[in-house]
Amino acid sequence: MHRTHTCGELTISDLDKTVVLSGWVQKSRDLGGMTFIDVRDRYGVTQLVFDPADDETLRLQARALGREYVIKVTGRVIERESKNTKLSTGDIEIKVSSLDVLNAAKLPPFTIEDDTDGGDELRMKYRYLDLRRNPVRNNLVLRHRLAQETRKYLDAHHFLEVETPVLIKSTPEGARDFVVPSRMNSGEFYALPQSPQTFKQLLMVSGFDRYFQIVKCFRDEDLRADRQPEFTQIDCEMAFVEQEDIILLFEGLITHLFKVIKGVDFGAFPRMSYDQAMRLYGSDKPDIRFGMSFVELNDVLKGAGFPVFDNAELVVGFNAKACAPYTRKQLDALTDYVRRPQIGASGLVYLRYNEDGSLKSSVDKFYSAEQLSQWAQAFGAQPGDLLLVMAGDTDKVRKQLNELRLEVASQLGLRDKNTYAPLWVTDFPLLEWDDESGRYHAMHHPFTSPKTEDIPLLDEQPARVRANAYDLVINGTEVGGGSIRIHDRELQSLMFKHLGFTPEEAQKQFGFLLEAFTYGAPPHGGIAFGFDRLAAIFAGLESIRDVIAFPKNNAGRDVMIDSPSLIADEQLAELGIAIR
Amino acid sequence: MHRTHTCGELTISDLDKTVVLSGWVQKSRDLGGMTFIDVRDRYGVTQLVFDPADDETLRLQARALGREYVIKVTGRVIERESKNTKLSTGDIEIKVSSLDVLNAAKLPPFTIEDDTDGGDELRMKYRYLDLRRNPVRNNLVLRHRLAQETRKYLDAHHFLEVETPVLIKSTPEGARDFVVPSRMNSGEFYALPQSPQTFKQLLMVSGFDRYFQIVKCFRDEDLRADRQPEFTQIDCEMAFVEQEDIILLFEGLITHLFKVIKGVDFGAFPRMSYDQAMRLYGSDKPDIRFGMSFVELNDVLKGAGFPVFDNAELVVGFNAKACAPYTRKQLDALTDYVRRPQIGASGLVYLRYNEDGSLKSSVDKFYSAEQLSQWAQAFGAQPGDLLLVMAGDTDKVRKQLNELRLEVASQLGLRDKNTYAPLWVTDFPLLEWDDESGRYHAMHHPFTSPKTEDIPLLDEQPARVRANAYDLVINGTEVGGGSIRIHDRELQSLMFKHLGFTPEEAQKQFGFLLEAFTYGAPPHGGIAFGFDRLAAIFAGLESIRDVIAFPKNNAGRDVMIDSPSLIADEQLAELGIAIR
Repeated sequence: MHRTHTCGELTISDLDKTVVLSGWVQKSRDLGGMTFIDVRDRYGVTQLVFDPADDETLRLQARALGREYVIKVTGRVIERESKNTKLSTGDIEIKVSSLDVLNAAKLPPFTIEDDTDGGDELRMKYRYLDLRRNPVRNNLVLRHRLAQETRKYLDAHHFLEVETPVLIKSTPEGARDFVVPSRMNSGEFYALPQSPQTFKQLLMVSGFDRYFQIVKCFRDEDLRADRQPEFTQIDCEMAFVEQEDIILLFEGLITHLFKVIKGVDFGAFPRMSYDQAMRLYGSDKPDIRFGMSFVELNDVLKGAGFPVFDNAELVVGFNAKACAPYTRKQLDALTDYVRRPQIGASGLVYLRYNEDGSLKSSVDKFYSAEQLSQWAQAFGAQPGDLLLVMAGDTDKVRKQLNELRLEVASQLGLRDKNTYAPLWVTDFPLLEWDDESGRYHAMHHPFTSPKTEDIPLLDEQPARVRANAYDLVINGTEVGGGSIRIHDRELQSLMFKHLGFTPEEAQKQFGFLLEAFTYGAPPHGGIAFGFDRLAAIFAGLESIRDVIAFPKNNAGRDVMIDSPSLIADEQLAELGIAIR
Repeated sequence: MHRTHTCGELTISDLDKTVVLSGWVQKSRDLGGMTFIDVRDRYGVTQLVFDPADDETLRLQARALGREYVIKVTGRVIERESKNTKLSTGDIEIKVSSLDVLNAAKLPPFTIEDDTDGGDELRMKYRYLDLRRNPVRNNLVLRHRLAQETRKYLDAHHFLEVETPVLIKSTPEGARDFVVPSRMNSGEFYALPQSPQTFKQLLMVSGFDRYFQIVKCFRDEDLRADRQPEFTQIDCEMAFVEQEDIILLFEGLITHLFKVIKGVDFGAFPRMSYDQAMRLYGSDKPDIRFGMSFVELNDVLKGAGFPVFDNAELVVGFNAKACAPYTRKQLDALTDYVRRPQIGASGLVYLRYNEDGSLKSSVDKFYSAEQLSQWAQAFGAQPGDLLLVMAGDTDKVRKQLNELRLEVASQLGLRDKNTYAPLWVTDFPLLEWDDESGRYHAMHHPFTSPKTEDIPLLDEQPARVRANAYDLVINGTEVGGGSIRIHDRELQSLMFKHLGFTPEEAQKQFGFLLEAFTYGAPPHGGIAFGFDRLAAIFAGLESIRDVIAFPKNNAGRDVMIDSPSLIADEQLAELGIAIR
């Protein structure tokens, strides 16, 4: 038997019990002629004591143990002289009578401590050692709990978890597919799903009514810090529902998760249309943990002879509350920030509302005192505020100002990872123009329904057509998105037409879905949550990598197992493919 | 709003309520001048009544509805005159005041009834319609419940569900891999996992202690009725355990599932070594719902001058209890059965123990009455029994007799799908000889540990080395298997050597695991259950296909979405591969 108890279990109520523990040597030290060893497992740490008065040979053996050795000990639970209140087992220690080394350990390439000295690359290569560290393991324990609670909630609401296929069919819409050559159907390929979208819609056609799945999805895209080639979705679909039904039910899910995992209570989530979000925050995923929403200033600031404003489509700014004390250097740094190539603004204008009531702007020569006062008024500014203003083409300047707003908020400590601000963004545009392909793309996906009243605009003003689509945003991160789907064959065909499909292409790619719609498809809609992102938000982490057990690096490589890798020529031959 | 209630919800206690229902037209009929429609959803069926006295136009509209139309009705709950006790809603009907057609439906290619008229191929092509049928949907509801209960049990036992990667590395061991060309690492490939074996072992090295995952796995093998290229495992691993710990914990899981899903109580599962199973049943997955275990007869029947027995390595048979009345024709049919090429026996010998106490065999001329009596005694036979005997090379004849035993049991109705007989088979051989490659293969996988006392046999008598490996068999189907793993680098290297790996090959394929074992790997072991097979057993089905929402056919094709398929030349070019 390897253990009677875990290393996190024994307390004063176990005094005098003879126990067997197994685990890793966390550290050892000699004190007063005795040797003390902390033995660790997933559940905690227990102190072992080796007393030379009992068995000097055993003590010397213990002393020789290295860090991360795997040991098994038998001993008696005794009360500690100096208790450790930080440990659940801190009242006791084990007086060891026998010791087995289950496995030796080389010195790890980095320390297995909460704060390690290992760099990113080393920790990726030895991921199995990094996973020993409490903070990393705790992220995955959290992820487990989130998955369990999600399933509990959805099961209680009559959702069925149905597994959809991983080997599916490549389609040209959306991101790039990973493909899998078929040996039995030589020259043909499966694709890995970017989402189970069409399958979950077919389940609605099948009358499954409420479906969900916590499921791996795949996108062969160039990776950023928060992207992985394989990622996990909480994928959901419901029949006979309208947008409001879906929003309420999944607001319930998120509320449940925050309640049980974080002890945070939410009221009803605020909502905002896409248009509002762009106007007030320059982003379709505003971080509303803090204010500083945008104020449009064309009426106030244009026409005063300042060419940058006069020639701009939009002059817009926000009130950096209580930031009047910002120094010239700080303001210059903000200007540099918006001028960085990633943001690309030409400059930044400020109006400082000093505590003494005086107003000082960076463009004083163009504006009278009266005008500066109107400017401050437009923001509802108070003494001590700092008004930051940019100008340019509407879409561009909003995005630039959004970056500035987030930067200032970060500087002010307003983006506290322990504060949570959920928000529904609704009424997304159905289509967005893509310069590269010279055609409209579906903003969400081709199965999203347009608002009925906007359908007449499809031909003449496609960009103005709104979709029955909604995103859930938390702290400025999009964690979920969904839509009411098209369930009518004619409308779906029309949609494909507007996306540039010929009828033949639509038939070839999505004929099965179009046909399914002719056999009694119910109205339906759904949502999918990025489970990795959700877990990262719960864990207070920036990157999803830290909530994934075995992530890949930015080149899509698993550096631990060294994959991808070359395969044998016979494998290629069997699959009927060749390397170019 | 699409509905106030589902179609399976309303009872007599809802009388007089005004309700909205949505669902599919199951059937309609005219009776006494009124039109009745059964409307169906996942939850049940409710009868709608359209009374011309209320609204003749509405009744005519209702009459025109086809099967599988999707409708929404508003109406009042009234008591039915002739109640239907088979339906939960059978006491009431809805007097309809308004009707909307949400979607029309073409006539389905087969009837959407519990017993359909659709053939296999048609039902695969229109899987979304087949999934509408109660028996098919109920299989998936059952599967959902099994998954939920599995997670509940394992979570309660401190297992963490950890997602392991789907894009991993191709290895030559085991079945053929599906591979995925990497675009970012041109010329290299990922592989889809046949199981998360090495990752779950690394999680043990990481101290996760108890891991599970309900996870898709992939094998590019030629398909049989009970195989799919993608299938699902309940994959589990534990640290600091011995075989007995794993067996007891997962016996608990299976017991829990049968208790909550089927209301069946099991005691402790019987156990049998691999050697016993082969000797008594000629199979490593014996069906022990019934007896008829094998009796070896070399001592009794050899040396009497019957050359088939005299020249055989093994003479072995079983007692087909109470089958003495089998006719000559039935016996000939059994002989034909074992002579089929799939079984390949040369013949079958019987001894009939008639009710009158007389003995009659098909080889009477070689045996005296005394010898026939000894023969019967060796089986402990009773009047009315039929003894079936075969002879040949040991391994071969056992397998052939196993087939015969199962066939006779099927004929006798002893393989009742509502009876469940779980069995642990233990002490599997570590290695098995493979004629094709001319070397030993791991019977389970290369990470399975040999029994310590058998390690010295590895060099001289590798076939005699037993593994710490165990299978769970239910009703003659292997539903799970596992082992205590090797956790020592030296032993793992030795194992690779015996499997024909050079040290360089072992390092290249599994270097990460070998290295992990040097940083403090705990003793560990695990098990994996075939979730599809388990679900099929619970559903009383022969094929796993019926518990999979969207299965592939025997050619690995999804005929509904028409996959695999050709992909664009640009896709191939981006991936750096070409079709040969």
